[in-house]
Amino acid sequence: MATNKQITLAARPTGLPKEADFQLVETPVPLPGDHEFMVRVIYLSVDPYMRGRMNDVKSYAEPVKLGEVMVGGAVGKVVQSNHADFKEGDIVEGPFGWQQYARSDGKGVRKIDPTLAPISTAVGVLGMPGLTAYFGLLDLCHPQPGETLVVSGAAGAVGSFVGQIGKLKGCRVVGIAGTDDKIDFLVNQLGFDAAFNYKTTDNYVAKLKELCPNGIDCYFDNVGGAITDAVFILMNQRARISICGQISQYNLETPAMGPRILLSLLLVKQAKAEGFLVFQFADRYEEGLRQMAAWIHQGKLKYTETIEAGIENAPRAFISMLQGKNTGKQLVKIADE
Amino acid sequence: MATNKQITLAARPTGLPKEADFQLVETPVPLPGDHEFMVRVIYLSVDPYMRGRMNDVKSYAEPVKLGEVMVGGAVGKVVQSNHADFKEGDIVEGPFGWQQYARSDGKGVRKIDPTLAPISTAVGVLGMPGLTAYFGLLDLCHPQPGETLVVSGAAGAVGSFVGQIGKLKGCRVVGIAGTDDKIDFLVNQLGFDAAFNYKTTDNYVAKLKELCPNGIDCYFDNVGGAITDAVFILMNQRARISICGQISQYNLETPAMGPRILLSLLLVKQAKAEGFLVFQFADRYEEGLRQMAAWIHQGKLKYTETIEAGIENAPRAFISMLQGKNTGKQLVKIADE
Repeated sequence: MATNKQITLAARPTGLPKEADFQLVETPVPLPGDHEFMVRVIYLSVDPYMRGRMNDVKSYAEPVKLGEVMVGGAVGKVVQSNHADFKEGDIVEGPFGWQQYARSDGKGVRKIDPTLAPISTAVGVLGMPGLTAYFGLLDLCHPQPGETLVVSGAAGAVGSFVGQIGKLKGCRVVGIAGTDDKIDFLVNQLGFDAAFNYKTTDNYVAKLKELCPNGIDCYFDNVGGAITDAVFILMNQRARISICGQISQYNLETPAMGPRILLSLLLVKQAKAEGFLVFQFADRYEEGLRQMAAWIHQGKLKYTETIEAGIENAPRAFISMLQGKNTGKQLVKIADE
Repeated sequence: MATNKQITLAARPTGLPKEADFQLVETPVPLPGDHEFMVRVIYLSVDPYMRGRMNDVKSYAEPVKLGEVMVGGAVGKVVQSNHADFKEGDIVEGPFGWQQYARSDGKGVRKIDPTLAPISTAVGVLGMPGLTAYFGLLDLCHPQPGETLVVSGAAGAVGSFVGQIGKLKGCRVVGIAGTDDKIDFLVNQLGFDAAFNYKTTDNYVAKLKELCPNGIDCYFDNVGGAITDAVFILMNQRARISICGQISQYNLETPAMGPRILLSLLLVKQAKAEGFLVFQFADRYEEGLRQMAAWIHQGKLKYTETIEAGIENAPRAFISMLQGKNTGKQLVKIADE
């Protein structure tokens, strides 16, 4: 009988997760019940938000329980179906988790047209990261032509789209990332106006001042911490900050301390900082997907993937992504298309 | 010859200003030139923002220079005029500074009708503090009936109006202040639903949880620091934070450190924090003043003043206000009406 390899949460991490915090288990392949179907997963998505789900803290979503399969979006193919809306052979994207086979009743699942774009994009530019960039930038920052947009985590799955959309909107775009290769990628592949490596930069304020001679009007924050402090210091009047992630804070064993300057700076700059989750734009996903697909087909938006192979390597890919080793979207390919 | 007593900035304070940071000087009474008039100041306003002007740091406004008269709004009477729009006997409000007599070309000056309300209200409920409360609450927080509004610095010139306007909008209003008398005033005089004394409360989160059983939807922040950290922890999804002041930070000799949690909390709560300066609403002042006056005349809004007498006591009144010793608007009366 076929087995279903799954990655479960074995232990709650302190600090950066390690491979021993996960366990590879094999269970029987789940058979679909009435009005259900079964998916063979092809691409797993690993994303920063999953770090939060590993803590025993209710946030906007429930934590993963010990022994449970890790949650996450994935793309796969329907291989057996008792569901009227999904038939064998359909390519689907949904919350299938870190496993080879998933049973689904269709909730949160959408069908993907594999003739429009590579199916991996359904968890990338034409999925959650793309929508996150699109709405988080346009709806929260309202970037205007001639304004300066700074993006942290700029070479990641979301940040790389944010910067490109900023360019499409006529902004000067400055990216912050953690390797020289990423800096090169941002400027020479994606067309950012400038970028710098925060790991080899001592004085973020001085560097940002140099790269943003007209100050900062929009900031899309994936990172938080000292990078964000520096951006706040250089905000222009009426700046708009979109808080998408705070990855610098996710793996700390004790909460970091920092200068209590952010709110004072919001005040004197008459600026706005707003957090968001992509789900709040659910009724406008179609708009976002249509626009992102159009930009891709027009050659105006590029996407990049870092792909690990094999479900047994999903924990390593996830940990690597948390350390910023990926460029663009981090995926794990666990079956052939 | 008559002299003009003025309070100048004698030294840049470190920490809480002391009286020696100011100097009382006497200069000749200024004579108005062409298209100018001279005002005898009656009420000086002392406000938290003035602490920022004492530092040698350009913020949204220039700092006061050493030896210059302290800046500030005031109410007075025109005693001599070469200006077509202002005549002897007019009551006016404007940026006259800490002095007995001010020369003005009319810029930033408005005429006050003394038959409508006591003239001191022109620097209080019917002036900058009232407008700050009105726009900062309504335009940034959009309080809805049934929501919970928390106000820090609740017994101050701005906070006391914020809470009352929140009640008028149907909110549960919880105030935070620094003396038991103020707590009594908020609940028993102004109709706040609840209030607590942060100086005698150990666990702000526990106290806020008790007083805000449905969480916090709107927060009007005059104070910052640990009080604000606690409010952020209890924010509801889509909470709105209006940053009006951060008085807990103004007199620190070194910048305070705090947990780097605020932006992460904005993110998971999909919440918004926005700073503002009342000047950004300048083209809507008439709307705000009309509404505040209507509420006063309908008996729906109360105002309270703490009045010190004598220009020589302006520094003491200012320092006292920074320490939270005032209830409602802190004024200095330096001449008879």
